[in-house]
Amino acid sequence: MNSIPIQALGEFIGTFVLVLLGDGVVAGVSLSKSKANGAGWVAISFGWGFAVTMGIYTSAFLGPAHLNPAVTIGMALAGKFPWSGVLPFTIAQILGAFVGAVLVWIHYGPHWKATKDEAAILGTFATGPAIRSYFANFMSEVIGTFVLVFSLLAFTRGQFTAGLNPVIVGILIIVIGLSLGGTTGYAINPARDLGPRLAHAILPIQNKGGSDWAYSWVPIVGPLVGGILGAGLFVILP
Amino acid sequence: MNSIPIQALGEFIGTFVLVLLGDGVVAGVSLSKSKANGAGWVAISFGWGFAVTMGIYTSAFLGPAHLNPAVTIGMALAGKFPWSGVLPFTIAQILGAFVGAVLVWIHYGPHWKATKDEAAILGTFATGPAIRSYFANFMSEVIGTFVLVFSLLAFTRGQFTAGLNPVIVGILIIVIGLSLGGTTGYAINPARDLGPRLAHAILPIQNKGGSDWAYSWVPIVGPLVGGILGAGLFVILP
Amino acid sequence: MNSIPIQALGEFIGTFVLVLLGDGVVAGVSLSKSKANGAGWVAISFGWGFAVTMGIYTSAFLGPAHLNPAVTIGMALAGKFPWSGVLPFTIAQILGAFVGAVLVWIHYGPHWKATKDEAAILGTFATGPAIRSYFANFMSEVIGTFVLVFSLLAFTRGQFTAGLNPVIVGILIIVIGLSLGGTTGYAINPARDLGPRLAHAILPIQNKGGSDWAYSWVPIVGPLVGGILGAGLFVILP
Amino acid sequence: MNSIPIQALGEFIGTFVLVLLGDGVVAGVSLSKSKANGAGWVAISFGWGFAVTMGIYTSAFLGPAHLNPAVTIGMALAGKFPWSGVLPFTIAQILGAFVGAVLVWIHYGPHWKATKDEAAILGTFATGPAIRSYFANFMSEVIGTFVLVFSLLAFTRGQFTAGLNPVIVGILIIVIGLSLGGTTGYAINPARDLGPRLAHAILPIQNKGGSDWAYSWVPIVGPLVGGILGAGLFVILP
Repeated sequence: MNSIPIQALGEFIGTFVLVLLGDGVVAGVSLSKSKANGAGWVAISFGWGFAVTMGIYTSAFLGPAHLNPAVTIGMALAGKFPWSGVLPFTIAQILGAFVGAVLVWIHYGPHWKATKDEAAILGTFATGPAIRSYFANFMSEVIGTFVLVFSLLAFTRGQFTAGLNPVIVGILIIVIGLSLGGTTGYAINPARDLGPRLAHAILPIQNKGGSDWAYSWVPIVGPLVGGILGAGLFVILP
Repeated sequence: MNSIPIQALGEFIGTFVLVLLGDGVVAGVSLSKSKANGAGWVAISFGWGFAVTMGIYTSAFLGPAHLNPAVTIGMALAGKFPWSGVLPFTIAQILGAFVGAVLVWIHYGPHWKATKDEAAILGTFATGPAIRSYFANFMSEVIGTFVLVFSLLAFTRGQFTAGLNPVIVGILIIVIGLSLGGTTGYAINPARDLGPRLAHAILPIQNKGGSDWAYSWVPIVGPLVGGILGAGLFVILP
Repeated sequence: MNSIPIQALGEFIGTFVLVLLGDGVVAGVSLSKSKANGAGWVAISFGWGFAVTMGIYTSAFLGPAHLNPAVTIGMALAGKFPWSGVLPFTIAQILGAFVGAVLVWIHYGPHWKATKDEAAILGTFATGPAIRSYFANFMSEVIGTFVLVFSLLAFTRGQFTAGLNPVIVGILIIVIGLSLGGTTGYAINPARDLGPRLAHAILPIQNKGGSDWAYSWVPIVGPLVGGILGAGLFVILP
Repeated sequence: MNSIPIQALGEFIGTFVLVLLGDGVVAGVSLSKSKANGAGWVAISFGWGFAVTMGIYTSAFLGPAHLNPAVTIGMALAGKFPWSGVLPFTIAQILGAFVGAVLVWIHYGPHWKATKDEAAILGTFATGPAIRSYFANFMSEVIGTFVLVFSLLAFTRGQFTAGLNPVIVGILIIVIGLSLGGTTGYAINPARDLGPRLAHAILPIQNKGGSDWAYSWVPIVGPLVGGILGAGLFVILP
């Protein structure tokens, strides 16, 4: 097994790919004049799901490919990852997500100017609530991440075909998106939300508005609580 | 192999995940102000299909992951499951479906108040006919579940890649949804319909109407008859 | 290996499932008041693709699961199937397709009366041209079936994961539908078109019009020619 | 392993299938009166993705199935393919793409006359920008192909299930299309763009306009630069 720094490099690369492709699909569906404009929630769910699949494939030869602090902490709680790796992994994940968001900004170059909707622009970077209600939004992120982490841990007890696990995880993300994403846009990953929100705040994006920092704790704390609950349920099962 | 109580715990967990994600996609597509609102039948079919996939993955390490009384009875008829397990499995499946529906209610918190359509709200919990005609609706559930149980039994005679069977079963549910779901919403599973209908009747859901108990026998009896026919055809094949 | 009669029973069952789910998705998307109404070409392409996947799974334990006379003849030409089996397979495939179409008629019971569009009703059973032009329509069926049979034969020279081949074939049907289906509705299978067209002609379907027998030779002769060309190219390759 | 000429024959066949199915889905979605008309970006992304899957399956028994000069050069840079094969592969890929585009023209016979939109007709053959801005368009092609080649190389370091790699590559193309395709239509392959653009220029297509040669360098140079960057990053990783 690789050392923690090499594994953290894998987290950086994988989360970079994850956010480039994940925020990318939201940009493609939301930004004005994009050829994918209006492709809808099926496109977004499959785009994010397969973004996770490719994030795992592009980092799994360097490390465990968590790509998500809630997963890293859940794995540590379940005794499947050393606690000493949690901080370096989290930093690498947030940095990777930040750089991925920067590339989305470059990739969609002239489409930012063409897009007049501030909410659509923020939405390509960070999640936001369909109906603002902090407690309900928090619960949504808890439930979504509970399903994510519990399922990932259940996978470790099943029979798997080496090499296809990233596709199964992608299917898990697709169905969480289709089924539970309608309320808050399913961050279910603190790094996926915080890194791109920082990029939104810092980058000179045309037509951008505020970065909605008032909401930003929800997609951080909710996923962490959900991940802890999912890991907790898993460890008490027979 | 685990004892029947442990296996029944697996049925509870798997049907819980199945209904949380399955009823969840209907809520996401149907409830007002959801980001997935209007995503359509492709979203619903893939959401339910992958909900079944994840229900299997999250319970297969504890038991056989039937998640459906029609499947349990079909397996018993085909000699692949002991009759003594049918009652505990059925109870666990209905309970799991009930709890899954409760979580859907919590997850979509403020969206119930925002949704004024009683039929849309009932539809996120229980199935209903596109055109009410009890005999035709019953036949639809028979045919859908016949295909389901016959196919599941056929899978047991084929070559499979360990670990990917839940994805194949998910594809089966997707195509039943796409092809046969348009008439009754394809319960094809008594627990999947009864558990959430009970939750709809009991929970203090805003803007809800009646639970349509007059129809509720169709998605119970139809799937049981269809499952028996599917298992019956399978056992007489060479 | 099973005897030809047992294998032909497999062809009957598999083509029955194929047409029940395949014609079913067209009915779901096209018939009035269906919950899947308007789900579009993505639904149709995935429905037909996964219908083929399930047709193969439900028959592969009895025989080779061709489910298509053009495939059977192509396999015979390539030396992978005995010529003596071609006639019994073809009869079984047409009968299976006929019975599958009868079940689609039963399944969508009250929706026939609700649907006033004769073309939509015929379209759930048999294929028809987007723009009627017999030579062009014939060429479309040739090209689609050429890709089908050549690809199926190419699969026999590749490495495969036992048990997942039916999914790969399903993906092949999905992409033929998405990419080449827009012109004639991609019969690419004489049995899939002739069996249901006979059912349309015979059954007392409400609001039905003529069965368009003038066009019926195209989805029979086109696929046979395409299959022969696909097999012919394959056998001359190094 | 086969000789370079046999491998190049594989490139010809695979790229032919790739473009027949890939340009085919754009024709199906874009041309007037096609049954797939209006199926949208999800159809296009899945159509192109599975076109690549089938291009690989139909050529992998003859060679490495690059089907893309940017991939061939990336593999050569990474030391996984001999430089002497680059020119014959590139020629075979462009020829295969050209012939594939000719078959798309034949397949959609009467639909060209029915389509009055010159941009839609060119779009079924070659890519074009959503917002014309050569530097931004070039960067989009660089970024898309960077992800493509880096991911393909990462796959070579992972565990894979023999026989399913073409499906994983198809998923990669799907997500690149969904997430990064909205800006330029994601050529990410010089042969895929140049071969069909030549066909568009030469063939007597009804209602066609110019072939936009002013833009044609972008989908050639961008993918080559992106492929070199992707391979370069891969080789410096631990």
